[in-house]
Amino acid sequence: MAQLDDLDRAILRLLKEDARLTISEIAERLGRPESTIHFRIKKLQEKNVIERYTIVLGKDLRPKALGILYIQARTPVIEDFLQKYIAHIVKTLAMLPNVLMVARSGGDGIIALIGGDNWEKVQDFVKETVEVLPGLERVELFPVDSFEKGAGIVGFLVDV
Amino acid sequence: MAQLDDLDRAILRLLKEDARLTISEIAERLGRPESTIHFRIKKLQEKNVIERYTIVLGKDLRPKALGILYIQARTPVIEDFLQKYIAHIVKTLAMLPNVLMVARSGGDGIIALIGGDNWEKVQDFVKETVEVLPGLERVELFPVDSFEKGAGIVGFLVDV
Repeated sequence: MAQLDDLDRAILRLLKEDARLTISEIAERLGRPESTIHFRIKKLQEKNVIERYTIVLGKDLRPKALGILYIQARTPVIEDFLQKYIAHIVKTLAMLPNVLMVARSGGDGIIALIGGDNWEKVQDFVKETVEVLPGLERVELFPVDSFEKGAGIVGFLVDV
Repeated sequence: MAQLDDLDRAILRLLKEDARLTISEIAERLGRPESTIHFRIKKLQEKNVIERYTIVLGKDLRPKALGILYIQARTPVIEDFLQKYIAHIVKTLAMLPNVLMVARSGGDGIIALIGGDNWEKVQDFVKETVEVLPGLERVELFPVDSFEKGAGIVGFLVDV
């Protein structure tokens, strides 16, 4: 377990905002020597506190409409079949570019973030790709409209 | 609207995986001159196709359990009150560190991503912080378990 102090956290906060900041810019902002900042960042990377560096894509490439999709499978007689069936749906959804995120949800469910050019397209996708699947107990789609926090996930997740 | 060609997309894919790649590393991988890569990245930044550079935090700092929370307010007689009430709940949730993401959902709903040390803590948070609020029609919490796609959102969203 990584033990972080205030300086570590301050560095991480700056890098989260802008990972292109140079060592000397961070040193200046935090009023610490460059050698200290260099050493700390090296440690944070080695300890996998910083797992990776990435980019967030801008509005043009992001879907205009989003929905959270919940799918629940009907519990069949054979439990083993249920698990294989859910794993199959999850893998299929993950291959589709408008499925930004997909995860298992409990023993019999799936949760996913779906994107589209507009809300009708998101709904159509669910109707045509998900609701047609046999053996589902429940399919529910919640719109994701204006973000108050975490808006960056769309530009972080979107495929190019 | 940004017009991207195959080279732009190849550059973006490499930077999404590792935004620390140097111009010369990208040039070598894609078999193009450094000057071309330099020019393309400059353009992608100027056009806000690359909105920003950031870091993804590793496992130690991430919540161990996650849930998607859906809240639906009861429609009151006065529509204006409903909007203000939802805006208030959204703003309050956004201030809490274990609320990783929160957005409006349709005219009377809220959708959020909640983190915690374990599933019981996520459930307790919803019971103690959300279910106690007056005037709610529906509160539902879906576990988010193993990711097939988009696992990085947790390390992207988590506060330090």
